[in-house]
Amino acid sequence: MAMNERTNGSGSFFDGVLDRTLGNLRAAWRDIAESARVYIGTGPRPDLPDNDADRLRAQMRACLEGTGGQVSARARAAELGRTYLALSPTGRERFLRLLAEEFDVDRVEVDEACARLSRAHEDNDRREAEQALRRALEPPHTRLLGQFNVLPEGVKFLVDLRAELMSLGRRDATFAALERDLKNLLASWFDIGFLELQRITWESPAALLEKLIAYEAVHTIRSWTDLKNRLEADRRCFAFFHPRMPHEPLIFVEVALVSGMATDVQKLLDEHAPLTDPGSADTAIFYSISNCQKGLAGISFGNFLIKRVVDQLASELPKLRNFATLSPIPGFRKWLDGRLGDGAEPRLGEILNTPGWHLDEALAKDAREPLSRLCARYLILEKGRPGRALDPVAHFHLSNGARVERLNWLGDTSPKGLQQSEGMMVNYLYKLADIEANHEAYTGEGRVAASPALRNLAAKA
Amino acid sequence: MAMNERTNGSGSFFDGVLDRTLGNLRAAWRDIAESARVYIGTGPRPDLPDNDADRLRAQMRACLEGTGGQVSARARAAELGRTYLALSPTGRERFLRLLAEEFDVDRVEVDEACARLSRAHEDNDRREAEQALRRALEPPHTRLLGQFNVLPEGVKFLVDLRAELMSLGRRDATFAALERDLKNLLASWFDIGFLELQRITWESPAALLEKLIAYEAVHTIRSWTDLKNRLEADRRCFAFFHPRMPHEPLIFVEVALVSGMATDVQKLLDEHAPLTDPGSADTAIFYSISNCQKGLAGISFGNFLIKRVVDQLASELPKLRNFATLSPIPGFRKWLDGRLGDGAEPRLGEILNTPGWHLDEALAKDAREPLSRLCARYLILEKGRPGRALDPVAHFHLSNGARVERLNWLGDTSPKGLQQSEGMMVNYLYKLADIEANHEAYTGEGRVAASPALRNLAAKA
Amino acid sequence: MAMNERTNGSGSFFDGVLDRTLGNLRAAWRDIAESARVYIGTGPRPDLPDNDADRLRAQMRACLEGTGGQVSARARAAELGRTYLALSPTGRERFLRLLAEEFDVDRVEVDEACARLSRAHEDNDRREAEQALRRALEPPHTRLLGQFNVLPEGVKFLVDLRAELMSLGRRDATFAALERDLKNLLASWFDIGFLELQRITWESPAALLEKLIAYEAVHTIRSWTDLKNRLEADRRCFAFFHPRMPHEPLIFVEVALVSGMATDVQKLLDEHAPLTDPGSADTAIFYSISNCQKGLAGISFGNFLIKRVVDQLASELPKLRNFATLSPIPGFRKWLDGRLGDGAEPRLGEILNTPGWHLDEALAKDAREPLSRLCARYLILEKGRPGRALDPVAHFHLSNGARVERLNWLGDTSPKGLQQSEGMMVNYLYKLADIEANHEAYTGEGRVAASPALRNLAAKA
Amino acid sequence: MAMNERTNGSGSFFDGVLDRTLGNLRAAWRDIAESARVYIGTGPRPDLPDNDADRLRAQMRACLEGTGGQVSARARAAELGRTYLALSPTGRERFLRLLAEEFDVDRVEVDEACARLSRAHEDNDRREAEQALRRALEPPHTRLLGQFNVLPEGVKFLVDLRAELMSLGRRDATFAALERDLKNLLASWFDIGFLELQRITWESPAALLEKLIAYEAVHTIRSWTDLKNRLEADRRCFAFFHPRMPHEPLIFVEVALVSGMATDVQKLLDEHAPLTDPGSADTAIFYSISNCQKGLAGISFGNFLIKRVVDQLASELPKLRNFATLSPIPGFRKWLDGRLGDGAEPRLGEILNTPGWHLDEALAKDAREPLSRLCARYLILEKGRPGRALDPVAHFHLSNGARVERLNWLGDTSPKGLQQSEGMMVNYLYKLADIEANHEAYTGEGRVAASPALRNLAAKA
Repeated sequence: MAMNERTNGSGSFFDGVLDRTLGNLRAAWRDIAESARVYIGTGPRPDLPDNDADRLRAQMRACLEGTGGQVSARARAAELGRTYLALSPTGRERFLRLLAEEFDVDRVEVDEACARLSRAHEDNDRREAEQALRRALEPPHTRLLGQFNVLPEGVKFLVDLRAELMSLGRRDATFAALERDLKNLLASWFDIGFLELQRITWESPAALLEKLIAYEAVHTIRSWTDLKNRLEADRRCFAFFHPRMPHEPLIFVEVALVSGMATDVQKLLDEHAPLTDPGSADTAIFYSISNCQKGLAGISFGNFLIKRVVDQLASELPKLRNFATLSPIPGFRKWLDGRLGDGAEPRLGEILNTPGWHLDEALAKDAREPLSRLCARYLILEKGRPGRALDPVAHFHLSNGARVERLNWLGDTSPKGLQQSEGMMVNYLYKLADIEANHEAYTGEGRVAASPALRNLAAKA
Repeated sequence: MAMNERTNGSGSFFDGVLDRTLGNLRAAWRDIAESARVYIGTGPRPDLPDNDADRLRAQMRACLEGTGGQVSARARAAELGRTYLALSPTGRERFLRLLAEEFDVDRVEVDEACARLSRAHEDNDRREAEQALRRALEPPHTRLLGQFNVLPEGVKFLVDLRAELMSLGRRDATFAALERDLKNLLASWFDIGFLELQRITWESPAALLEKLIAYEAVHTIRSWTDLKNRLEADRRCFAFFHPRMPHEPLIFVEVALVSGMATDVQKLLDEHAPLTDPGSADTAIFYSISNCQKGLAGISFGNFLIKRVVDQLASELPKLRNFATLSPIPGFRKWLDGRLGDGAEPRLGEILNTPGWHLDEALAKDAREPLSRLCARYLILEKGRPGRALDPVAHFHLSNGARVERLNWLGDTSPKGLQQSEGMMVNYLYKLADIEANHEAYTGEGRVAASPALRNLAAKA
Repeated sequence: MAMNERTNGSGSFFDGVLDRTLGNLRAAWRDIAESARVYIGTGPRPDLPDNDADRLRAQMRACLEGTGGQVSARARAAELGRTYLALSPTGRERFLRLLAEEFDVDRVEVDEACARLSRAHEDNDRREAEQALRRALEPPHTRLLGQFNVLPEGVKFLVDLRAELMSLGRRDATFAALERDLKNLLASWFDIGFLELQRITWESPAALLEKLIAYEAVHTIRSWTDLKNRLEADRRCFAFFHPRMPHEPLIFVEVALVSGMATDVQKLLDEHAPLTDPGSADTAIFYSISNCQKGLAGISFGNFLIKRVVDQLASELPKLRNFATLSPIPGFRKWLDGRLGDGAEPRLGEILNTPGWHLDEALAKDAREPLSRLCARYLILEKGRPGRALDPVAHFHLSNGARVERLNWLGDTSPKGLQQSEGMMVNYLYKLADIEANHEAYTGEGRVAASPALRNLAAKA
Repeated sequence: MAMNERTNGSGSFFDGVLDRTLGNLRAAWRDIAESARVYIGTGPRPDLPDNDADRLRAQMRACLEGTGGQVSARARAAELGRTYLALSPTGRERFLRLLAEEFDVDRVEVDEACARLSRAHEDNDRREAEQALRRALEPPHTRLLGQFNVLPEGVKFLVDLRAELMSLGRRDATFAALERDLKNLLASWFDIGFLELQRITWESPAALLEKLIAYEAVHTIRSWTDLKNRLEADRRCFAFFHPRMPHEPLIFVEVALVSGMATDVQKLLDEHAPLTDPGSADTAIFYSISNCQKGLAGISFGNFLIKRVVDQLASELPKLRNFATLSPIPGFRKWLDGRLGDGAEPRLGEILNTPGWHLDEALAKDAREPLSRLCARYLILEKGRPGRALDPVAHFHLSNGARVERLNWLGDTSPKGLQQSEGMMVNYLYKLADIEANHEAYTGEGRVAASPALRNLAAKA
């Protein structure tokens, strides 16, 4: 049984929580209550049969009513959480359905509160009626979920629970509502004001670095040696953490300190490249940014992370002049295939269909101009939803106030790079003085900021 | 001007925030924006004249609308916060009025959302209408206040802001509503699951210990020597902290490790008493518990604190058998005066009117029985609001599940002790096995748990 | 050039110091003086030509004489150290020769001090003469070496310098004397009272764990996954550190918490074995102990490490009853080959010459008795130097007071295990009550403590 | 009995060790062995009667011979240390006498080693004879003392032991030799390379700040408020610590960050003076430097401390231009009294004999010129031992390479300031470029560096 193997992969998914809790954390054996411990190694996890459901329902009610005092209620909530962790997938789904269906808002109460509001005319009455309505609209299951944060890793528990609800919610709207309520709760707890920026280095705990390897979503970390290279003296890595989830990065960014704009990600990741003096670098290249927690989807940290890292680097390394990304263009190939399928640029289509074309100097030379032109167009002119760049990475940086700065021919010749964008990469430039104006222009009128060279190139396509 | 003196008292009040920010914190000079710094030493703080109010209103709006992107909006919120800190009392009141009146919920929007809800019949429509109504009921000023937590000490800022609103709200209901909304926000942020229990010792930072001196509300800490004595090897002090307010205790408790039930607080506080070996103590006496943050009034931590400290002491010191308080009886004298005024116990009344009666053996002997009897009655039988002990300290411990255990004759002969309870003190006993039942009996039926001896005594009165 | 590659192996050898200093340490770029930095990437390191030697000699003299004040003298010593680091192997040898030959004790001075001593008769004269003689006997090069500890990693510098001197000393006695003096200095600095015991876990810095992989000398750590397994909840790893070498373990031990005596190291190292509850283990098995610093050879920590770890485990896990090792027998095969070569046990010799004999049940069965018997004899009866067990690992544990407890047939079937001891392993038992007596019997009379069963077996051989 | 009072003064003296060990340290109760604990509260400490002395002698011998193995020997040394701590003053003196007299070098062995050396002619023989002689000259008591560092606070133990030996040594040379050996040991352990510079702030542990109050030797710290003022944003305090004595400062310096040279120490210490922005200060004034450990007398840290603090301040606060002291002139009054007694400057003598003369404008005006002139002469021209300034503070700063910069008329009008130097203070200037040359000139030829103005003034006297 997977949970009993000694060294399973890093805990990016929900099931990992139990394993980890049981497994290698400092205080694990001390903190786990009897109820959870009995399942270790004793066979299959239970499915939550009906009479157990009755017991659960009663426990949930007792938590909400505070029976035995607040302290006891919290202890009971913790026990509920541990029960949940020990259930089989079927058992968990039943647990959540019970929560979603039987602890939702009381519609009669809501309607009455609405009616009371419509009768309130004096200022004070009105205020009180609003308060009452607000209370009636707060679903008990959300209050109950909130109480789970007294578990040893309660916040992580809820984050992973939301990931589970997101997946259940795709086929059953009952869960979608619960999931949305949980999202609101998490959005309040994960407000940027509560997050801590930490630099990650080769001196960081292996248990944390192992998670970077698991969570890296842009350029796969192939080995501990690859990772070490990304943490050398001329590299930086920063992540946001929540004080109650100190061992779990929320999002992290990898930065290279270089001279001049970086154009080739394979060079940046080369473990045999010489080290350079970070103090003499003039450019910080953000070459990878990865979200780590599925359960925090839709709660945005990336813009704050980039801003905070820019500030920190600027104060640490006064010679830095430019802050830019070296970014993939994940949607380019798909869009291009559509264009080529329509018969545009037949010669280009022919070349790209030749395996290994990028290694053939003559073919590559012929492809370069039309491919660059189309890529510029794709990034700067093509829209997805109204006012929004078609490419998702472009959309992210443009709404943060960056501009499309430069295309990098064969900037990523890894299989993934060729597959998603025919090897093209792009630099987005963060020019501090222009960020606000760029953002306003983009979010207001959908105007994309771009360097004159790229704008001209796009216009030709 | 007070803020410029070098060593003002510890920052327990709101005005202290600015001084402290300006004053002695590590990063202070780096973190303070220009807008705040100009006021240092340049004379009176501004009152927020009308044209400034226009500017403020526009800034608040920009924060809420996210103009220039989320990052810029937060920077602007931080600036608003600093502006607030630099205002005169009049200026601050104007600032808060503006926030309370112009950024409240939009009643038209609320009414429309109510109407929509009443028309929604299908499950999904209903859910969406509920969501919309919930959003409409969330006042913009609360969202804006929440954004202030990006200030360097943003959480403390909001806690102190609530204290200020509480004081304003007493004379103007406009502020009361804003204060209540802020309380809800703080109650969510200060959920017990986010708090950290820390032991405080003589090795703790002086800056923190200085706050204990300022915040101690039961038995005044007279000097650093007195404080040191309360942190010796046979004493314990624990406090709750919030991760984003790491230098500010929320509540703290002082414990003495003794053999047998402690009966006399002057003995406990005696700086010249011999040290005892904590490892051989059988009883932990909680002799003082103080809330530290006015702005967290009504958000309760005390019950959790006692429970957590009991757990921690029990695991550290396995010889501990009893957990009890040595508590003041703050309302006894007032209640007693009423009784004596009605002519009950004339001899007792006479004695108590004799200055220094407790030092006169004969008088004290005569007073002992009737005073003890009345005190037992006061604690066990007298009610304030229905089902609630009249004495506030009794109410706190009884609702935590403790029982009234023993009266201590002349247990506190300090002027304050004589003044509030004729020197009587009381032990509340926390017996782990009975806590839940005691709590339920008390909160459900108002039944007070007490030792048989005291119950008999009370019955005689 | 190796030093410029981005991710070279962990710094177990001397050359690593410069790379690491230049490489990935926090403060590296700030701390390195100009003199060292110029060599980065600019080609070959210098050999220390003659005129440089003159300059060096003068610098060394200035350090010893304290020219310019103590502070300046130390700055100059640091510069000398950096010069040394930047030299080629030839340059370094010249540097050390200069130090060894020209800054040795002044024999004339020593002889004079001896003469003075012989003339001193009064108590005070005698004492002063002894002091003077002691001073005369302290070689200037040792004083100079001691000054190098102001370098950013000065203590590690000297430890690695000694390793270098040990290697040079093997062919040239000039260096041997300097090495011996340095050993005395290091023995004083690395007194057990200065060392800190730390537990190493998967939460430890990757930079530290990487060193465990490099330094493990008994059972090679094959991968980060193997390492993680050795740090799981039912394993322990402890190391000694010096406060001025906080990133460098001196010696570390790996422990498995099991039920009953462990007999098979492959089982202990199996990454897929189930986790067990350390709280219910009754036996702590020390299965690997490795010294990390060549330059500390001959300065012994192992006995203290085992004792401290036993104490710590006993207090953390009260169910532990037995403390034992699972140890290799590195010298057995060599001794056995001698015996078999002499014609003893011809059948056994034949079997052992059959490749894969241990996988053939019949052959293994035949080999078991004679091999075990000879192994018992080897461990218990065979002597190297007088009074000293022939096997080095046996000698280490016996002089610590352990006893030879049990042989483990095919306890290590790795190629190394078969190669050095035909798969045999042994448990040494640390019985706290017997340690002193065992030690005295062994060091005094060379008497080896052993279990009765093993003693009988050995007697038969 | 004093040791049992709850809050005795901070432990600057030797007796404090036991109290503190018994008292308020974290791990105290766990770490203290039975042998020491029995004395708590059971009456007088023993005097070490004769039969106990026999037992001690045997124990000491066993430690030195390593009976039972190194680990046991160290445990026995720790026990010896605890025995010592529990003795009465008489008992301690006997203990130390035993150590000094019976564990000194063996003179016969030394003489034989000398003889062997005189016979050694070949290089190798000579080297070995030197080694043997060195070993013979190492007194066993020093080796034994060194073993005490395994006590929980072993290093502090030895430091305080030396203080005790210094005091005993003043009346008995037996102890003086032991004291000198211990000094050598401590000098090696407290080498500057092992010390850590730490900034001390109001955030530092109260237990540490309490020691500053006790150890401040120049300008008494009158209260915790006075102390807090010295740690404000425009002040700095730094201390050296040893890693094995982390709670005990060795030496500390107090610095004020000001604009222009500070001339008046009462102004610097004024708790009501306004705070200034440290970032705009151009001058760092070192106004107090205090040694903390009597037992480290003669082992010098002050010069390193000043240098390291200058470096750190210069890198933190780039606007700082000048580093200077504001220093007392402790020997001026005594020297002046001699001069005036000889009849020089009768008018000045008359004024200084007038109580409160410095408050009388006319008198002060008359005194100013002659007093300043004589003071300049005292500082710059008067010698104590050959080549050494008569004033001890002057000697300290001059040998560090500072120069006498400016006299401050009525710079310290505290009773102590008037008493020791008629209110005069002096600034010593540390000009980085001149420090080496100043030091060489002073230590070589006794030449005192001084500003031209002061030199002229001194010449007139």
